[in-house]
Amino acid sequence: MKKTRAAIVGYGNIGHYVLDALQSAEDFEIAGIVRRDATNIPDELKPYNVINDIDELQDVEVAILCTPTRKVEEFAEKIIARGINTVDSFDIHTQIAGLRSRLDALCKQHHTVSITAAGWDPGSDSMVRALMQAAAPKGVTYTNFGPGMSMGHTVAVKAIEGVKAALSMTIPLGTGIHRRMVYIELKEGYAFDQVAKNIKNDPYFVNDETHVMQVECVNDLLDMGHGVHMIRKGVSGKTQNQILEFNMKINNPALTAQILVGVARASLRQQPGCYTMIEIPVIDMLCGDRENLIKHLV
Amino acid sequence: MKKTRAAIVGYGNIGHYVLDALQSAEDFEIAGIVRRDATNIPDELKPYNVINDIDELQDVEVAILCTPTRKVEEFAEKIIARGINTVDSFDIHTQIAGLRSRLDALCKQHHTVSITAAGWDPGSDSMVRALMQAAAPKGVTYTNFGPGMSMGHTVAVKAIEGVKAALSMTIPLGTGIHRRMVYIELKEGYAFDQVAKNIKNDPYFVNDETHVMQVECVNDLLDMGHGVHMIRKGVSGKTQNQILEFNMKINNPALTAQILVGVARASLRQQPGCYTMIEIPVIDMLCGDRENLIKHLV
Repeated sequence: MKKTRAAIVGYGNIGHYVLDALQSAEDFEIAGIVRRDATNIPDELKPYNVINDIDELQDVEVAILCTPTRKVEEFAEKIIARGINTVDSFDIHTQIAGLRSRLDALCKQHHTVSITAAGWDPGSDSMVRALMQAAAPKGVTYTNFGPGMSMGHTVAVKAIEGVKAALSMTIPLGTGIHRRMVYIELKEGYAFDQVAKNIKNDPYFVNDETHVMQVECVNDLLDMGHGVHMIRKGVSGKTQNQILEFNMKINNPALTAQILVGVARASLRQQPGCYTMIEIPVIDMLCGDRENLIKHLV
Repeated sequence: MKKTRAAIVGYGNIGHYVLDALQSAEDFEIAGIVRRDATNIPDELKPYNVINDIDELQDVEVAILCTPTRKVEEFAEKIIARGINTVDSFDIHTQIAGLRSRLDALCKQHHTVSITAAGWDPGSDSMVRALMQAAAPKGVTYTNFGPGMSMGHTVAVKAIEGVKAALSMTIPLGTGIHRRMVYIELKEGYAFDQVAKNIKNDPYFVNDETHVMQVECVNDLLDMGHGVHMIRKGVSGKTQNQILEFNMKINNPALTAQILVGVARASLRQQPGCYTMIEIPVIDMLCGDRENLIKHLV
Protein backbone atom coordinates (compact mmCIF):
# COMPACT_ATOMS: atom_id res chain seq x y z
CA MET A 1 0.00 0.00 0.00
CA LYS A 2 1.29 3.44 -0.99
CA LYS A 3 1.36 5.45 2.22
CA THR A 4 0.36 9.11 2.47
CA ARG A 5 3.17 11.33 3.73
CA ALA A 6 1.85 13.70 6.38
CA ALA A 7 3.60 16.43 8.36
CA ILE A 8 2.50 17.52 11.83
CA VAL A 9 2.75 21.31 12.12
CA GLY A 10 2.83 22.40 15.77
CA TYR A 11 3.39 19.98 18.63
CA GLY A 12 1.19 20.90 21.56
CA ASN A 13 -1.75 18.87 22.85
CA ILE A 14 -3.36 18.22 19.48
CA GLY A 15 -0.03 17.56 17.76
CA HIS A 16 0.79 14.92 20.35
CA TYR A 17 -2.49 13.07 19.74
CA VAL A 18 -2.14 13.46 15.95
CA LEU A 19 1.16 11.59 16.29
CA ASP A 20 -0.77 8.76 18.04
CA ALA A 21 -3.43 8.72 15.34
CA LEU A 22 -0.91 8.72 12.47
CA GLN A 23 1.07 5.92 14.13
CA SER A 24 -2.17 3.92 14.39
CA ALA A 25 -3.18 4.51 10.74
CA GLU A 26 -1.75 1.92 8.38
CA ASP A 27 -2.08 4.15 5.31
CA PHE A 28 0.03 7.06 6.65
CA GLU A 29 3.73 7.77 6.97
CA ILE A 30 5.03 10.60 9.16
CA ALA A 31 7.15 12.93 7.02
CA GLY A 32 8.17 14.99 10.04
CA ILE A 33 7.13 17.36 12.79
CA VAL A 34 7.43 21.12 12.33
CA ARG A 35 7.87 23.08 15.55
CA ARG A 36 9.18 26.47 16.56
CA ASP A 37 11.94 24.98 18.68
CA ALA A 38 13.25 22.06 16.63
CA THR A 39 15.89 21.31 19.26
CA ASN A 40 13.11 20.35 21.70
CA ILE A 41 12.73 16.66 20.83
CA PRO A 42 10.84 14.55 23.38
CA ASP A 43 11.45 10.77 23.31
CA GLU A 44 8.41 9.94 21.21
CA LEU A 45 9.66 12.25 18.42
CA LYS A 46 13.19 10.79 18.30
CA PRO A 47 12.40 8.44 15.36
CA TYR A 48 11.22 11.39 13.24
CA ASN A 49 12.47 14.51 11.47
CA VAL A 50 11.80 17.45 13.77
CA ILE A 51 12.41 20.69 11.92
CA ASN A 52 11.59 24.41 11.93
CA ASP A 53 10.18 24.74 8.47
CA ILE A 54 8.10 22.43 6.33
CA ASP A 55 10.40 23.24 3.38
CA GLU A 56 13.02 21.04 5.01
CA LEU A 57 10.80 17.95 4.54
CA GLN A 58 10.55 15.85 1.36
CA ASP A 59 7.39 14.92 -0.55
CA VAL A 60 4.83 16.05 2.02
CA GLU A 61 1.32 15.45 0.66
CA VAL A 62 -0.67 16.87 3.55
CA ALA A 63 0.17 19.09 6.52
CA ILE A 64 -1.89 18.62 9.66
CA LEU A 65 -2.01 22.01 11.35
CA CYS A 66 -1.90 21.71 15.13
CA THR A 67 -1.10 25.35 15.82
CA PRO A 68 -3.28 27.66 17.90
CA THR A 69 -6.47 28.55 15.98
CA ARG A 70 -5.35 32.13 15.41
CA LYS A 71 -2.18 30.97 13.64
CA VAL A 72 -4.02 28.59 11.29
CA GLU A 73 -4.51 30.98 8.39
CA GLU A 74 -0.90 32.14 8.34
CA PHE A 75 0.43 28.55 8.26
CA ALA A 76 -2.22 27.34 5.81
CA GLU A 77 -1.45 30.16 3.35
CA LYS A 78 2.24 29.43 3.37
CA ILE A 79 1.87 25.66 3.03
CA ILE A 80 -0.88 25.75 0.38
CA ALA A 81 1.36 28.05 -1.69
CA ARG A 82 3.93 25.23 -1.68
CA GLY A 83 1.40 22.86 -3.28
CA ILE A 84 0.79 20.88 -0.08
CA ASN A 85 -2.72 20.06 1.20
CA THR A 86 -3.60 21.35 4.67
CA VAL A 87 -6.13 20.33 7.29
CA ASP A 88 -6.90 22.28 10.45
CA SER A 89 -9.27 22.45 13.40
CA PHE A 90 -9.88 26.22 13.26
CA ASP A 91 -12.66 26.71 15.80
CA ILE A 92 -13.95 30.30 15.81
CA HIS A 93 -17.38 29.50 14.38
CA THR A 94 -18.16 33.01 13.16
CA GLN A 95 -14.95 33.21 11.11
CA ILE A 96 -15.05 29.81 9.40
CA ALA A 97 -16.96 30.82 6.26
CA GLY A 98 -14.55 33.71 5.62
CA LEU A 99 -11.45 31.60 6.18
CA ARG A 100 -12.82 28.85 3.92
CA SER A 101 -13.51 31.29 1.14
CA ARG A 102 -10.01 32.88 1.31
CA LEU A 103 -8.26 29.49 1.43
CA ASP A 104 -10.52 28.21 -1.37
CA ALA A 105 -9.18 30.80 -3.81
CA LEU A 106 -5.62 30.01 -2.78
CA CYS A 107 -6.13 26.24 -3.12
CA LYS A 108 -7.59 26.60 -6.61
CA GLN A 109 -4.61 28.73 -7.60
CA HIS A 110 -2.11 26.17 -6.31
CA HIS A 111 -4.08 22.98 -7.15
CA THR A 112 -4.25 21.87 -3.54
CA VAL A 113 -6.97 20.91 -1.11
CA SER A 114 -7.58 22.35 2.34
CA ILE A 115 -10.12 21.05 4.84
CA THR A 116 -10.82 23.59 7.53
CA ALA A 117 -12.69 23.63 10.86
CA ALA A 118 -12.22 19.88 11.16
CA GLY A 119 -12.42 18.66 14.72
CA TRP A 120 -15.53 17.65 16.58
CA ASP A 121 -17.19 21.06 16.93
CA PRO A 122 -16.79 22.52 14.39
CA GLY A 123 -16.34 19.20 12.59
CA SER A 124 -18.12 15.91 13.21
CA ASP A 125 -20.87 17.73 15.16
CA SER A 126 -21.36 19.97 12.10
CA MET A 127 -21.96 16.89 9.97
CA VAL A 128 -24.50 15.59 12.47
CA ARG A 129 -26.20 19.02 12.63
CA ALA A 130 -26.42 19.10 8.82
CA LEU A 131 -27.75 15.54 8.73
CA MET A 132 -30.34 16.33 11.42
CA GLN A 133 -31.47 19.32 9.34
CA ALA A 134 -31.71 17.11 6.24
CA ALA A 135 -33.84 14.65 8.24
CA ALA A 136 -36.15 17.30 9.70
CA PRO A 137 -35.72 20.59 7.78
CA LYS A 138 -37.96 22.62 10.12
CA GLY A 139 -37.11 22.70 13.81
CA VAL A 140 -34.45 23.69 16.30
CA THR A 141 -31.15 21.94 17.07
CA TYR A 142 -29.55 22.51 20.45
CA THR A 143 -25.84 21.76 20.86
CA ASN A 144 -24.92 21.32 24.52
CA PHE A 145 -21.23 20.98 25.33
CA GLY A 146 -19.53 19.49 28.31
CA PRO A 147 -18.91 19.32 31.10
CA GLY A 148 -15.36 19.44 29.89
CA MET A 149 -12.27 21.45 29.10
CA SER A 150 -12.53 23.58 25.99
CA MET A 151 -9.20 23.59 24.15
CA GLY A 152 -10.01 26.69 22.09
CA HIS A 153 -11.24 28.65 25.10
CA THR A 154 -8.28 27.59 27.21
CA VAL A 155 -5.83 28.72 24.54
CA ALA A 156 -7.73 32.02 24.29
CA VAL A 157 -7.36 32.59 28.04
CA LYS A 158 -3.65 31.76 27.93
CA ALA A 159 -3.19 34.43 25.24
CA ILE A 160 -4.44 37.14 27.61
CA GLU A 161 -1.77 39.25 29.28
CA GLY A 162 -1.06 38.35 32.88
CA VAL A 163 -2.24 34.73 32.59
CA LYS A 164 0.40 32.20 33.57
CA ALA A 165 -1.70 29.02 33.26
CA ALA A 166 -5.37 28.50 32.50
CA LEU A 167 -8.22 26.04 32.17
CA SER A 168 -11.61 26.88 30.71
CA MET A 169 -14.38 24.40 31.54
CA THR A 170 -17.65 24.37 29.58
CA ILE A 171 -20.75 23.56 31.63
CA PRO A 172 -23.98 22.78 29.73
CA LEU A 173 -27.04 24.63 31.02
CA GLY A 174 -29.39 23.11 28.38
CA THR A 175 -30.91 24.51 25.16
CA GLY A 176 -27.44 25.42 23.93
CA ILE A 177 -26.66 27.76 26.83
CA HIS A 178 -23.31 27.32 28.58
CA ARG A 179 -21.46 28.57 31.59
CA ARG A 180 -17.69 29.05 31.30
CA MET A 181 -15.69 28.23 34.41
CA VAL A 182 -12.21 29.72 33.97
CA TYR A 183 -9.40 28.77 36.35
CA ILE A 184 -6.18 30.76 36.11
CA GLU A 185 -2.78 31.18 37.65
CA LEU A 186 -1.72 34.82 37.55
CA LYS A 187 1.69 36.13 36.50
CA GLU A 188 3.38 38.29 39.09
CA GLY A 189 2.62 41.99 38.88
CA TYR A 190 -0.87 41.62 37.38
CA ALA A 191 -4.14 42.50 39.08
CA PHE A 192 -6.66 39.64 39.08
CA ASP A 193 -9.68 41.90 38.54
CA GLN A 194 -8.25 43.44 35.38
CA VAL A 195 -7.17 40.10 33.93
CA ALA A 196 -10.59 38.59 34.74
CA LYS A 197 -12.29 41.50 33.00
CA ASN A 198 -10.11 41.06 29.91
CA ILE A 199 -11.01 37.36 29.78
CA LYS A 200 -14.74 38.12 30.03
CA ASN A 201 -14.45 40.63 27.17
CA ASP A 202 -12.60 38.24 24.86
CA PRO A 203 -14.71 37.17 21.82
CA TYR A 204 -14.59 33.57 23.07
CA PHE A 205 -16.33 34.54 26.32
CA VAL A 206 -18.23 37.77 25.79
CA ASN A 207 -21.57 36.04 25.00
CA ASP A 208 -21.52 33.48 27.82
CA GLU A 209 -21.92 33.53 31.59
CA THR A 210 -18.24 33.43 32.60
CA HIS A 211 -16.73 32.95 36.02
CA VAL A 212 -13.00 33.50 36.45
CA MET A 213 -11.23 32.01 39.46
CA GLN A 214 -7.65 32.24 40.60
CA VAL A 215 -6.09 28.93 41.65
CA GLU A 216 -2.67 27.88 42.89
CA CYS A 217 -2.12 25.07 40.41
CA VAL A 218 -4.15 24.75 37.21
CA ASN A 219 -2.36 21.53 36.38
CA ASP A 220 -4.07 19.74 39.29
CA LEU A 221 -7.47 20.41 37.66
CA LEU A 222 -6.71 19.21 34.15
CA ASP A 223 -8.86 16.45 32.66
CA MET A 224 -9.27 16.38 28.89
CA GLY A 225 -12.53 14.46 28.90
CA HIS A 226 -15.37 16.26 27.20
CA GLY A 227 -18.81 15.63 25.82
CA VAL A 228 -21.66 16.89 23.72
CA HIS A 229 -25.39 16.39 23.69
CA MET A 230 -27.11 17.54 20.49
CA ILE A 231 -30.85 17.35 20.09
CA ARG A 232 -33.21 18.35 17.31
CA LYS A 233 -37.00 18.22 17.39
CA GLY A 234 -38.37 18.98 13.98
CA VAL A 235 -40.62 18.32 11.03
CA SER A 236 -40.07 15.79 8.22
CA GLY A 237 -42.36 16.80 5.35
CA LYS A 238 -45.53 17.63 7.30
CA THR A 239 -44.90 15.23 10.20
CA GLN A 240 -44.12 16.94 13.51
CA ASN A 241 -42.21 15.76 16.56
CA GLN A 242 -39.31 13.93 14.85
CA ILE A 243 -36.63 13.63 17.54
CA LEU A 244 -32.95 13.13 16.77
CA GLU A 245 -30.17 13.08 19.33
CA PHE A 246 -26.37 12.71 19.31
CA ASN A 247 -24.18 12.20 22.38
CA MET A 248 -20.48 11.78 22.97
CA LYS A 249 -18.23 11.26 25.98
CA ILE A 250 -14.70 11.56 24.67
CA ASN A 251 -11.09 12.58 25.20
CA ASN A 252 -11.19 15.92 23.43
CA PRO A 253 -7.72 16.27 21.80
CA ALA A 254 -7.67 12.55 20.92
CA LEU A 255 -10.93 12.90 18.99
CA THR A 256 -9.86 16.15 17.33
CA ALA A 257 -6.60 14.50 16.26
CA GLN A 258 -8.36 11.42 14.89
CA ILE A 259 -10.75 13.58 12.86
CA LEU A 260 -7.78 15.60 11.53
CA VAL A 261 -6.15 12.39 10.30
CA GLY A 262 -9.48 11.37 8.69
CA VAL A 263 -9.79 14.64 6.79
CA ALA A 264 -6.09 14.49 5.85
CA ARG A 265 -6.99 11.22 4.10
CA ALA A 266 -10.11 12.83 2.59
CA SER A 267 -8.09 15.81 1.32
CA LEU A 268 -6.42 13.53 -1.23
CA ARG A 269 -9.83 12.63 -2.70
CA GLN A 270 -11.24 16.14 -3.31
CA GLN A 271 -10.98 18.54 -6.23
CA PRO A 272 -8.76 21.61 -5.55
CA GLY A 273 -10.44 23.99 -3.12
CA CYS A 274 -11.15 24.52 0.57
CA TYR A 275 -13.89 22.53 2.28
CA THR A 276 -15.59 22.25 5.61
CA MET A 277 -16.52 18.74 6.75
CA ILE A 278 -20.17 19.02 5.70
CA GLU A 279 -18.90 19.41 2.12
CA ILE A 280 -16.99 16.13 1.96
CA PRO A 281 -18.35 12.56 1.72
CA VAL A 282 -17.87 10.82 5.07
CA ILE A 283 -16.51 7.68 3.37
CA ASP A 284 -13.48 9.71 2.20
CA MET A 285 -12.32 9.96 5.84
CA LEU A 286 -12.07 6.20 6.22
CA CYS A 287 -9.15 3.87 5.64
CA GLY A 288 -9.74 0.78 3.54
CA ASP A 289 -11.29 -0.50 0.35
CA ARG A 290 -14.31 1.57 -0.67
CA GLU A 291 -16.47 -1.34 -1.82
CA ASN A 292 -15.77 -3.08 1.46
CA LEU A 293 -16.61 0.00 3.54
CA ILE A 294 -19.93 0.29 1.69
CA LYS A 295 -20.69 -3.38 2.40
CA HIS A 296 -20.01 -2.97 6.12
CA LEU A 297 -21.32 0.51 6.89
CA VAL A 298 -24.32 1.21 4.64
CA MET B 1 -35.57 30.15 -8.04
CA LYS B 2 -35.49 27.40 -10.68
CA LYS B 3 -37.35 24.46 -9.21
CA THR B 4 -36.31 20.85 -9.62
CA ARG B 5 -38.93 18.71 -11.35
CA ALA B 6 -39.39 15.46 -9.47
CA ALA B 7 -41.64 12.48 -10.19
CA ILE B 8 -42.96 10.16 -7.49
CA VAL B 9 -42.86 6.55 -8.70
CA GLY B 10 -45.17 4.36 -6.63
CA TYR B 11 -47.77 5.74 -4.27
CA GLY B 12 -47.93 3.61 -1.14
CA ASN B 13 -46.89 4.71 2.34
CA ILE B 14 -43.56 6.22 1.34
CA GLY B 15 -44.97 7.84 -1.81
CA HIS B 16 -47.61 9.56 0.27
CA TYR B 17 -45.03 11.05 2.63
CA VAL B 18 -42.75 12.00 -0.29
CA LEU B 19 -45.66 14.05 -1.60
CA ASP B 20 -45.76 15.86 1.79
CA ALA B 21 -42.00 16.45 1.72
CA LEU B 22 -41.99 17.74 -1.88
CA GLN B 23 -44.91 20.06 -1.14
CA SER B 24 -42.94 21.41 1.83
CA ALA B 25 -39.71 21.94 -0.16
CA GLU B 26 -39.54 25.33 -1.83
CA ASP B 27 -37.01 24.20 -4.43
CA PHE B 28 -39.08 21.31 -5.87
CA GLU B 29 -41.94 21.05 -8.33
CA ILE B 30 -43.98 17.84 -8.66
CA ALA B 31 -43.84 16.64 -12.27
CA GLY B 32 -46.31 13.85 -11.57
CA ILE B 33 -47.05 10.60 -9.82
CA VAL B 34 -46.49 7.27 -11.57
CA ARG B 35 -48.68 4.42 -10.33
CA ARG B 36 -49.89 1.08 -11.62
CA ASP B 37 -53.52 2.16 -11.54
CA ALA B 38 -53.52 5.73 -12.81
CA THR B 39 -57.30 5.93 -12.50
CA ASN B 40 -56.97 5.64 -8.72
CA ILE B 41 -56.59 9.32 -7.84
CA PRO B 42 -57.14 10.22 -4.17
CA ASP B 43 -58.02 13.84 -3.35
CA GLU B 44 -54.48 14.90 -2.50
CA LEU B 45 -53.28 13.84 -5.99
CA LYS B 46 -56.02 15.71 -7.89
CA PRO B 47 -53.79 18.77 -8.58
CA TYR B 48 -51.13 16.56 -10.23
CA ASN B 49 -50.51 14.40 -13.28
CA VAL B 50 -51.15 10.80 -12.25
CA ILE B 51 -49.99 8.46 -14.98
CA ASN B 52 -48.89 4.86 -15.67
CA ASP B 53 -45.54 5.53 -17.20
CA ILE B 54 -42.88 8.13 -16.50
CA ASP B 55 -42.52 8.64 -20.27
CA GLU B 56 -45.82 10.51 -20.19
CA LEU B 57 -44.27 13.27 -18.00
CA GLN B 58 -42.27 16.24 -19.29
CA ASP B 59 -38.79 17.32 -18.19
CA VAL B 60 -38.43 15.08 -15.15
CA GLU B 61 -35.00 15.63 -13.55
CA VAL B 62 -35.26 13.10 -10.77
CA ALA B 63 -37.54 10.16 -10.05
CA ILE B 64 -38.14 9.28 -6.42
CA LEU B 65 -38.73 5.53 -6.34
CA CYS B 66 -41.34 4.59 -3.74
CA THR B 67 -41.92 1.06 -5.00
CA PRO B 68 -41.35 -2.07 -2.93
CA THR B 69 -37.62 -2.68 -2.42
CA ARG B 70 -37.61 -5.70 -4.72
CA LYS B 71 -38.95 -3.61 -7.62
CA VAL B 72 -36.34 -0.85 -7.22
CA GLU B 73 -33.76 -2.19 -9.65
CA GLU B 74 -36.26 -2.80 -12.45
CA PHE B 75 -37.65 0.76 -12.18
CA ALA B 76 -34.23 2.35 -11.69
CA GLU B 77 -32.83 0.65 -14.81
CA LYS B 78 -35.67 1.80 -16.97
CA ILE B 79 -35.66 5.38 -15.70
CA ILE B 80 -31.86 5.82 -15.73
CA ALA B 81 -31.86 4.65 -19.36
CA ARG B 82 -34.13 7.60 -20.12
CA GLY B 83 -31.53 10.02 -18.73
CA ILE B 84 -33.42 10.74 -15.52
CA ASN B 85 -31.78 10.63 -12.06
CA THR B 86 -33.23 8.17 -9.57
CA VAL B 87 -33.20 7.90 -5.79
CA ASP B 88 -34.48 4.94 -3.81
CA SER B 89 -34.64 3.49 -0.31
CA PHE B 90 -33.61 -0.06 -1.24
CA ASP B 91 -33.16 -1.72 2.14
CA ILE B 92 -31.74 -5.24 1.80
CA HIS B 93 -28.35 -4.48 3.35
CA THR B 94 -26.50 -7.46 1.88
CA GLN B 95 -27.53 -6.55 -1.68
CA ILE B 96 -26.75 -2.83 -1.66
CA ALA B 97 -23.14 -2.96 -2.86
CA GLY B 98 -24.13 -5.15 -5.82
CA LEU B 99 -27.08 -2.95 -6.78
CA ARG B 100 -24.94 0.17 -6.51
CA SER B 101 -22.28 -1.27 -8.74
CA ARG B 102 -24.79 -2.35 -11.45
CA LEU B 103 -26.58 1.01 -11.39
CA ASP B 104 -23.24 2.83 -11.38
CA ALA B 105 -22.29 1.40 -14.78
CA LEU B 106 -25.72 2.26 -16.15
CA CYS B 107 -25.59 5.83 -14.79
CA LYS B 108 -22.18 6.46 -16.33
CA GLN B 109 -23.47 5.17 -19.66
CA HIS B 110 -26.50 7.47 -19.57
CA HIS B 111 -24.90 10.47 -17.80
CA THR B 112 -27.28 10.31 -14.89
CA VAL B 113 -26.98 10.04 -11.12
CA SER B 114 -28.61 7.48 -8.87
CA ILE B 115 -28.55 7.53 -5.07
CA THR B 116 -29.48 4.17 -3.62
CA ALA B 117 -30.26 2.79 -0.16
CA ALA B 118 -31.30 6.26 0.98
CA GLY B 119 -33.66 6.18 3.92
CA TRP B 120 -32.69 6.11 7.54
CA ASP B 121 -31.24 2.60 7.76
CA PRO B 122 -29.68 2.13 5.31
CA GLY B 123 -29.26 5.88 4.89
CA SER B 124 -28.78 8.52 7.56
CA ASP B 125 -27.79 5.81 10.08
CA SER B 126 -25.13 4.66 7.60
CA MET B 127 -23.69 8.17 7.57
CA VAL B 128 -23.60 8.23 11.36
CA ARG B 129 -22.00 4.76 11.46
CA ALA B 130 -19.32 5.90 9.01
CA LEU B 131 -18.75 9.09 11.00
CA MET B 132 -18.47 7.13 14.26
CA GLN B 133 -15.89 4.88 12.61
CA ALA B 134 -13.95 7.93 11.41
CA ALA B 135 -14.01 9.30 14.98
CA ALA B 136 -12.90 6.05 16.60
CA PRO B 137 -11.54 3.65 13.93
CA LYS B 138 -11.16 0.69 16.31
CA GLY B 139 -14.20 -0.49 18.22
CA VAL B 140 -17.69 -1.90 17.83
CA THR B 141 -20.88 -0.10 16.76
CA TYR B 142 -24.22 -1.54 17.79
CA THR B 143 -27.33 -0.48 15.88
CA ASN B 144 -30.48 -1.16 17.89
CA PHE B 145 -33.80 -0.63 16.14
CA GLY B 146 -37.23 0.02 17.53
CA PRO B 147 -39.53 -0.65 19.07
CA GLY B 148 -41.37 0.08 15.87
CA MET B 149 -42.90 -1.11 12.65
CA SER B 150 -40.37 -2.12 10.01
CA MET B 151 -41.65 -1.11 6.58
CA GLY B 152 -39.31 -3.44 4.70
CA HIS B 153 -40.11 -6.43 6.89
CA THR B 154 -43.85 -5.72 6.74
CA VAL B 155 -43.76 -5.59 2.94
CA ALA B 156 -41.77 -8.84 2.95
CA VAL B 157 -44.46 -10.54 5.06
CA LYS B 158 -47.23 -9.24 2.82
CA ALA B 159 -45.47 -10.80 -0.19
CA ILE B 160 -45.77 -14.28 1.34
CA GLU B 161 -48.59 -16.43 0.01
CA GLY B 162 -51.59 -16.68 2.28
CA VAL B 163 -50.98 -13.37 4.07
CA LYS B 164 -53.92 -10.97 3.82
CA ALA B 165 -52.54 -8.18 6.04
CA ALA B 166 -49.36 -7.90 8.10
CA LEU B 167 -47.34 -5.87 10.57
CA SER B 168 -43.74 -6.64 11.53
CA MET B 169 -42.55 -4.97 14.73
CA THR B 170 -38.84 -4.72 15.54
CA ILE B 171 -37.97 -5.04 19.23
CA PRO B 172 -34.42 -4.13 20.33
CA LEU B 173 -32.75 -6.68 22.61
CA GLY B 174 -29.48 -4.70 22.87
CA THR B 175 -26.05 -5.14 21.20
CA GLY B 176 -27.71 -5.14 17.79
CA ILE B 177 -29.90 -8.18 18.48
CA HIS B 178 -33.59 -7.89 17.62
CA ARG B 179 -36.78 -9.81 18.05
CA ARG B 180 -39.36 -9.67 15.20
CA MET B 181 -43.00 -9.66 16.27
CA VAL B 182 -45.10 -10.43 13.21
CA TYR B 183 -48.87 -9.96 13.29
CA ILE B 184 -50.86 -11.33 10.35
CA GLU B 185 -54.36 -11.77 9.02
CA LEU B 186 -54.63 -15.00 7.05
CA LYS B 187 -56.30 -15.44 3.65
CA GLU B 188 -59.00 -18.09 3.56
CA GLY B 189 -57.83 -21.58 2.71
CA TYR B 190 -54.31 -21.18 4.13
CA ALA B 191 -52.87 -22.98 7.14
CA PHE B 192 -51.36 -20.65 9.74
CA ASP B 193 -48.48 -23.00 10.61
CA GLN B 194 -47.27 -23.22 7.01
CA VAL B 195 -47.53 -19.45 6.44
CA ALA B 196 -45.71 -18.77 9.74
CA LYS B 197 -42.95 -21.16 8.70
CA ASN B 198 -42.59 -19.45 5.32
CA ILE B 199 -42.29 -16.07 7.05
CA LYS B 200 -39.60 -17.36 9.40
CA ASN B 201 -37.62 -18.74 6.45
CA ASP B 202 -37.76 -15.48 4.47
CA PRO B 203 -34.31 -13.79 4.15
CA TYR B 204 -35.67 -10.81 6.12
CA PHE B 205 -36.40 -13.01 9.14
CA VAL B 206 -34.26 -16.11 8.96
CA ASN B 207 -31.48 -14.70 11.18
CA ASP B 208 -33.68 -13.20 13.90
CA GLU B 209 -35.86 -14.52 16.70
CA THR B 210 -39.26 -14.26 15.01
CA HIS B 211 -42.70 -14.73 16.50
CA VAL B 212 -45.68 -14.89 14.16
CA MET B 213 -49.15 -14.24 15.52
CA GLN B 214 -52.52 -14.35 13.85
CA VAL B 215 -54.80 -11.39 14.65
CA GLU B 216 -58.28 -10.36 13.58
CA CYS B 217 -57.42 -6.86 12.47
CA VAL B 218 -53.84 -5.80 11.75
CA ASN B 219 -55.03 -2.28 11.05
CA ASP B 220 -55.89 -1.77 14.73
CA LEU B 221 -52.23 -2.32 15.65
CA LEU B 222 -50.61 0.04 13.16
CA ASP B 223 -48.38 2.83 14.47
CA MET B 224 -45.62 4.09 12.20
CA GLY B 225 -43.44 5.42 14.98
CA HIS B 226 -39.99 3.92 15.09
CA GLY B 227 -36.60 4.52 16.64
CA VAL B 228 -32.95 3.69 16.67
CA HIS B 229 -30.22 3.67 19.28
CA MET B 230 -26.69 3.43 17.87
CA ILE B 231 -23.68 3.25 20.12
CA ARG B 232 -19.96 2.93 19.48
CA LYS B 233 -17.22 2.53 22.05
CA GLY B 234 -13.85 2.75 20.38
CA VAL B 235 -10.34 4.07 20.11
CA SER B 236 -9.23 7.44 18.67
CA GLY B 237 -5.51 7.14 17.91
CA LYS B 238 -4.33 5.33 21.04
CA THR B 239 -7.02 6.68 23.37
CA GLN B 240 -9.55 4.08 24.52
CA ASN B 241 -13.13 4.43 25.72
CA GLN B 242 -14.40 7.06 23.27
CA ILE B 243 -18.20 6.80 23.44
CA LEU B 244 -20.49 8.02 20.66
CA GLU B 245 -24.24 7.57 20.55
CA PHE B 246 -27.09 8.42 18.17
CA ASN B 247 -30.80 8.16 18.98
CA MET B 248 -34.00 8.85 17.09
CA LYS B 249 -37.71 8.62 17.82
CA ILE B 250 -39.43 9.22 14.51
CA ASN B 251 -42.33 8.59 12.16
CA ASN B 252 -40.66 6.05 9.91
CA PRO B 253 -42.10 6.70 6.41
CA ALA B 254 -42.04 10.47 7.03
CA LEU B 255 -38.30 10.36 7.74
CA THR B 256 -37.57 8.01 4.83
CA ALA B 257 -39.50 10.33 2.52
CA GLN B 258 -37.69 13.43 3.77
CA ILE B 259 -34.32 11.77 3.25
CA LEU B 260 -35.38 10.72 -0.26
CA VAL B 261 -36.18 14.33 -1.10
CA GLY B 262 -32.80 15.38 0.32
CA VAL B 263 -30.91 12.92 -1.84
CA ALA B 264 -33.06 13.84 -4.85
CA ARG B 265 -31.65 17.35 -4.38
CA ALA B 266 -28.14 15.96 -3.88
CA SER B 267 -28.40 13.86 -7.04
CA LEU B 268 -28.26 17.05 -9.11
CA ARG B 269 -24.89 17.92 -7.57
CA GLN B 270 -22.96 14.67 -8.21
CA GLN B 271 -20.97 13.42 -11.17
CA PRO B 272 -22.63 10.61 -13.18
CA GLY B 273 -22.68 7.38 -11.21
CA CYS B 274 -24.52 5.57 -8.43
CA TYR B 275 -23.88 6.50 -4.81
CA THR B 276 -24.84 5.43 -1.33
CA MET B 277 -25.36 8.21 1.21
CA ILE B 278 -21.91 7.83 2.80
CA GLU B 279 -20.45 8.81 -0.58
CA ILE B 280 -22.19 12.19 -0.85
CA PRO B 281 -21.49 15.42 1.06
CA VAL B 282 -24.28 15.99 3.58
CA ILE B 283 -24.58 19.68 2.56
CA ASP B 284 -25.80 18.56 -0.88
CA MET B 285 -29.00 17.27 0.72
CA LEU B 286 -29.93 20.68 2.08
CA CYS B 287 -32.02 23.45 0.55
CA GLY B 288 -30.60 26.96 0.55
CA ASP B 289 -27.53 29.01 -0.20
CA ARG B 290 -24.35 27.01 0.40
CA GLU B 291 -22.37 29.81 2.03
CA ASN B 292 -25.26 30.45 4.37
CA LEU B 293 -25.60 26.78 5.31
CA ILE B 294 -21.89 26.69 6.14
CA LYS B 295 -22.29 29.78 8.33
CA HIS B 296 -25.18 28.25 10.26
CA LEU B 297 -24.27 24.59 10.50
CA VAL B 298 -20.47 24.29 10.70
